[in-house]
Amino acid sequence: MATLGDIGVAATINIITAIIFLLAFAILRIQPFNDRVYFPKWYLKGIRSSPLHSGALVSKFVNVNLGSYLRFLNWMPAALKMPEPELIDHAGLDSAVYLRIYLIGLKIFVPIALLAWSILVPVNWTSDGLQLAKLRNVTSSDIDKLSISNIERGSERFWTHLVMAYAFTFWTCYVLMKEYEKVASMRLSFLQSEQRRPDQFTVLVRNVPSDPDESISESVEHYFLVNHPDHYLTHQVVYNANDLADLVEKKRSTQNWLDYNQLKYTRNQDQRPRIKTGFLGLWGEKVDAIDHYVAEIEKLNDQIMEERKKVKKDDKSVMPAAFVSFKTRWGAAVCAQTQQSRNPTEWLTEWAPEAREVFWSNLAIPYVSLTVRRLIMHVAFFFLTFFFMIPIAFVQSLASIEGIEKSASFLKPIIENDLVKSVIQGFLPGIVLKLFIIFLPSILMVMSKFEGFVSLSSLERRAAFRYYIFNLVNVFLGSIITGSAFEQLDSFLKQSANQIPRTVGVAIPIKATFFITYIMVDGWAGVAGEILRLKPLIFFHVKNFFLVKTEKDREEAMNPGQINFHATEPRIQLYFLLGLVYAPVTPVLLPFIIIFFALAYLVFRHQIINVYNQEYESAGRFWPDVHGRIISALIISQVLLLGLMSTKGAAQSTPFLVALPVLTFFFHRFCKGRYEPAFLRHPLQEAMIKDTLEQAREPNFNLKPYLKKAYIHPVFKDDEYEDVRSEVSGYYLGDTDDECVTVPTKRQSRITTPAASHASGGSMRSPS
Amino acid sequence: MATLGDIGVAATINIITAIIFLLAFAILRIQPFNDRVYFPKWYLKGIRSSPLHSGALVSKFVNVNLGSYLRFLNWMPAALKMPEPELIDHAGLDSAVYLRIYLIGLKIFVPIALLAWSILVPVNWTSDGLQLAKLRNVTSSDIDKLSISNIERGSERFWTHLVMAYAFTFWTCYVLMKEYEKVASMRLSFLQSEQRRPDQFTVLVRNVPSDPDESISESVEHYFLVNHPDHYLTHQVVYNANDLADLVEKKRSTQNWLDYNQLKYTRNQDQRPRIKTGFLGLWGEKVDAIDHYVAEIEKLNDQIMEERKKVKKDDKSVMPAAFVSFKTRWGAAVCAQTQQSRNPTEWLTEWAPEAREVFWSNLAIPYVSLTVRRLIMHVAFFFLTFFFMIPIAFVQSLASIEGIEKSASFLKPIIENDLVKSVIQGFLPGIVLKLFIIFLPSILMVMSKFEGFVSLSSLERRAAFRYYIFNLVNVFLGSIITGSAFEQLDSFLKQSANQIPRTVGVAIPIKATFFITYIMVDGWAGVAGEILRLKPLIFFHVKNFFLVKTEKDREEAMNPGQINFHATEPRIQLYFLLGLVYAPVTPVLLPFIIIFFALAYLVFRHQIINVYNQEYESAGRFWPDVHGRIISALIISQVLLLGLMSTKGAAQSTPFLVALPVLTFFFHRFCKGRYEPAFLRHPLQEAMIKDTLEQAREPNFNLKPYLKKAYIHPVFKDDEYEDVRSEVSGYYLGDTDDECVTVPTKRQSRITTPAASHASGGSMRSPS
Repeated sequence: MATLGDIGVAATINIITAIIFLLAFAILRIQPFNDRVYFPKWYLKGIRSSPLHSGALVSKFVNVNLGSYLRFLNWMPAALKMPEPELIDHAGLDSAVYLRIYLIGLKIFVPIALLAWSILVPVNWTSDGLQLAKLRNVTSSDIDKLSISNIERGSERFWTHLVMAYAFTFWTCYVLMKEYEKVASMRLSFLQSEQRRPDQFTVLVRNVPSDPDESISESVEHYFLVNHPDHYLTHQVVYNANDLADLVEKKRSTQNWLDYNQLKYTRNQDQRPRIKTGFLGLWGEKVDAIDHYVAEIEKLNDQIMEERKKVKKDDKSVMPAAFVSFKTRWGAAVCAQTQQSRNPTEWLTEWAPEAREVFWSNLAIPYVSLTVRRLIMHVAFFFLTFFFMIPIAFVQSLASIEGIEKSASFLKPIIENDLVKSVIQGFLPGIVLKLFIIFLPSILMVMSKFEGFVSLSSLERRAAFRYYIFNLVNVFLGSIITGSAFEQLDSFLKQSANQIPRTVGVAIPIKATFFITYIMVDGWAGVAGEILRLKPLIFFHVKNFFLVKTEKDREEAMNPGQINFHATEPRIQLYFLLGLVYAPVTPVLLPFIIIFFALAYLVFRHQIINVYNQEYESAGRFWPDVHGRIISALIISQVLLLGLMSTKGAAQSTPFLVALPVLTFFFHRFCKGRYEPAFLRHPLQEAMIKDTLEQAREPNFNLKPYLKKAYIHPVFKDDEYEDVRSEVSGYYLGDTDDECVTVPTKRQSRITTPAASHASGGSMRSPS
Repeated sequence: MATLGDIGVAATINIITAIIFLLAFAILRIQPFNDRVYFPKWYLKGIRSSPLHSGALVSKFVNVNLGSYLRFLNWMPAALKMPEPELIDHAGLDSAVYLRIYLIGLKIFVPIALLAWSILVPVNWTSDGLQLAKLRNVTSSDIDKLSISNIERGSERFWTHLVMAYAFTFWTCYVLMKEYEKVASMRLSFLQSEQRRPDQFTVLVRNVPSDPDESISESVEHYFLVNHPDHYLTHQVVYNANDLADLVEKKRSTQNWLDYNQLKYTRNQDQRPRIKTGFLGLWGEKVDAIDHYVAEIEKLNDQIMEERKKVKKDDKSVMPAAFVSFKTRWGAAVCAQTQQSRNPTEWLTEWAPEAREVFWSNLAIPYVSLTVRRLIMHVAFFFLTFFFMIPIAFVQSLASIEGIEKSASFLKPIIENDLVKSVIQGFLPGIVLKLFIIFLPSILMVMSKFEGFVSLSSLERRAAFRYYIFNLVNVFLGSIITGSAFEQLDSFLKQSANQIPRTVGVAIPIKATFFITYIMVDGWAGVAGEILRLKPLIFFHVKNFFLVKTEKDREEAMNPGQINFHATEPRIQLYFLLGLVYAPVTPVLLPFIIIFFALAYLVFRHQIINVYNQEYESAGRFWPDVHGRIISALIISQVLLLGLMSTKGAAQSTPFLVALPVLTFFFHRFCKGRYEPAFLRHPLQEAMIKDTLEQAREPNFNLKPYLKKAYIHPVFKDDEYEDVRSEVSGYYLGDTDDECVTVPTKRQSRITTPAASHASGGSMRSPS
């Protein structure tokens, strides 16, 4: 059982780590040669240019201006300076809304913490129920003096906790509702303020029934000409172009080599670069590199051309899906929200995702297969979740002092040393958990890809949901139950389903210290580490010294990264859960959580402004999930409190506690009905207004050519290889002006989108 | 514990009762003076005319044709003769689909019964596990020899039941899917084949935001002119006209008296009828009746006129709701399926219900209030459900032999008589339950009215759902647990939530006999009683002899009644539940259920053809509920079997059983996605086809006047009192021809719609 001392040690360790990280960051970021690591966003926006091209040799690489070292914390105010509207312009609505999650954390927990510390803590502290706990031979620590464990069985004082539980619930719900309202209106006005974008006019149609007499393209055209006569404008079929995409990819790399050799040749004119044609250029006869690559590219071009022809001629390479565009947003809104044919599994229509977040390979999955895939994935996830618990329990049992002494008794002398002991107690459990969790999100992402979602945002939302469930079962419940299993396993095995809230509830105060250390390790040090960007830093320099051949490669070496919603948001949710669960039980935990939220808010705001670069814009589409999870955390906390109370002989208070989850649930129902539609549907009124305005502004704008190529599979985007490359690779710096005028938002961000390639890359690898 | 003997007695009693009912029916129905009781449907269709006007005096009232007595069962083939399409024309799709519920029962259980009797029964019979049951001192009856209880703990034979469970599940799911498919296509083609009806072009708009500058009517018009410019045609606001409706009602009765007196006067010319003007015509000075009533009607007319003016002028009497009509079905379909304004709680649009199933008084409930009402009703229903169990348990405990002897020992000698004993054992529990259940549906109906649904069909669906839950908890679980509580209460109290499937599972075979008697009482005798229509018969003759003043009154005295979906369907579901639960456990029960389904199918088909008269047509809208409940019954049966098996030491088989509910659930998900939309939305393609056809058939049909008055509150329907009366009372025989041409369906059924008056009556009584 960890004591206050252990906590202290853990806290100091973590605080020191955090501070070291922050210092390192402060120093590294002002070094010019790290500029592209810490300010990529500005490069991508084309606002900032590399300092390497100017100034004295030294100052190119090392910052010699000592003054700037003194102001090493000035990034913090800078991060807060940019106002939200500007932030939305700068980084998109997704990022701005994502930051609001941390803000909510502060809005919810700061008042709760004040209330708890001013009322609950004194009430707990002045009681003396711990010898009682001793009797129940649940070992307790000093922390527990401040917690509900310190209150005698059946004491009248529990009414305080009851009232507090109500206060906390109402406050949380209030904040949540306000936020939901705010975000919904932000989303709507964002969509309203956007320039013309193809996806505003386009609907994704799936499960087009195959027709013996007509090709997919024809039947789509006929169908919509008949059923949306006044609104149908044009459509684009979806090709399955994996081989083609491979060829294009290959050509791109060859092109790089060509550039590189030409660069080399221009550097020293006297000898033309020569290479071996054999494996990796290690053997084979030497040829003139430039001629060789030129020839290669020629060959590839021919192959690409004919492959492209083949795909376009061959009907089997057309997927039964299409992007149908309409004359007006109104028409698109109507088609996206209505059912088309009497068979509800054919002609499925939904809003077309942004062109760059389309996950091409899933466009062709038929309805039945979708159901089956969903079933399979649910089952798979179930097993994934519940078989993870065994290793966790095992490793954690080792990670306790007793465990280690048992399993490796020769370590005993070392462990007996108090410091080491504290370190082990404070650190290991958290780290064990971390290791498990690091590898998870990518697995979940693959699972949701298999499940057949068609847009990256929906993929991420599903992955995030599963990750949250996993955290809930394994990190939260897992650590509580199996962790505390060694105190009360025997009493636990005897209990049954309806007893679990009680068991967990009883274990909650006991695990407080564990979660506090967890928060410090994962929350504090973790977040501070995030800002240091150690991995990208190293990668960048390694690439820079060995691989970078051309300026373009340097661009690529600079990996801005982005908020991985499906990996980060569920972890934040864990803090909401901890905060809400412990607020009425062990308020000591709250300050740690508040510090986490504040620090994370700072760091991520800075990262979003200077570093991250979202691969797509879903206009805060994920908010209903965030809201729903906080609500569920709230309900869990109420149920657990209920369980705890009922074991504390405060039975008379339970009826009042039962009311809480019910009320909370209906609050959720209310919010769902009131705000969620703003995230699912596009109101006709809005569409009509925007149509009318536009009609007035540019009465004779020709939509058709503008939409014609918007949703063509990247590799068909253009027959000039330049464009193809830009589409496939997603690294492309300029574009023809007219497009820039019409859709700067898209362009700006496509410039910098590893995801575009990664998304279409998905489709390339897929057989579908 | 009931023995096979008791069952036999109960069976004979019930069969005799049933036969008596059927005989009585066979005799009564061929008596001319009962003609209006047993063939009202034909009168209402205007095809059959009263035999009282023709023939010899005796034969007017008694059927003297002895031959017809011999053919007293010929109604049965007659009931089966009419083919389904004709039945749909004759009685509407709702009735036809309703009959299919009984058909499903047969389709599911006949094969299951054959399988069970050919495999399970032998397997059970040839085992001898009953002494084991004796050891667990669960008393057992001869029935149990045929049931799973007769198999030894952990015997290999349980694999048979496992395989059977799978077979039953797959067969049930197969039948369900086929039926869902069939009904969905029936509904769509029914909607497609229908003549022009106002609700095809009309959308109900609720929560119209109040506008300081505009009246509701204006803002509705402007809003839809702006947002549906090409499609909006016209709209009708909803008035709150309670007082007016009262006046109209009052005038109608006065009118009746006038007719009556005029009739009397024409009978004997020599003296004009005179009445006392005082209370109930008991005192006060005598006046000439005819003059009096004429004057009365004059007065009322004036009042009505000014009240009507007042309502129409006064803006406060306009509800924030309106019926908006469109030029095309396509336009209406679009508006009904899309979200209009950015605030999803304003401008809520949904398909307008048929004019005669609108529940006017709920049209004005704002969104928040709806959520609150729902919450309140859920809580109320929860208490209703769980506090009903106490009396049931109590009365049933009395209704057992031991109970009676305990509570009223002086009855002992009588009870000890075997016959009485059997009667008590066989009958009482069933009757006790019946008494509880009879009064329930109306309560639930009131609850759903309070909950704020706007169409009668949705009201009934919600009430049906609640009634089903109630049956599940109280009739099914209630009888099993509390009933068997007296055998194993002590062992039960010790168990916990996850043990309940086991407890119930164990109790299931024991309660078989109880449910068999229940089926016979409720199913056999009950259904046979249904066809006798004792209540309507008596009421009709009573009214006929005392109240009937005019021919119109005789019309009213003839109450055809209708299928009360919310009262009958949940009871059928109980039989599905019993059948599925007992199929693998006690197959003996199945034949009883099959007899029920067969008999009920016969009887209700006959009633639907000759008697019932639906007050509205929802085109089988209720089918998804039926499907969902059978699925849930299936899942319950699987869980209980799982519980039972796990107590039978057949643990190795449980993993296979766990898979069943999961699969079933996903089958449900699949069906939901595949077929349910046909019951919720109106596909644009269908709408477009119908529009096009109609356009071609009558290119210059003027829709606007046709829709103008379709959804005006009944009392405003027409200023001529004749029409007003027809609308309010719902008893009106003719109508102006043009309307007859355009909407015969509506007219025919309004002729005969107590509900129209009852629905609008609702609105009249409501303050809203």
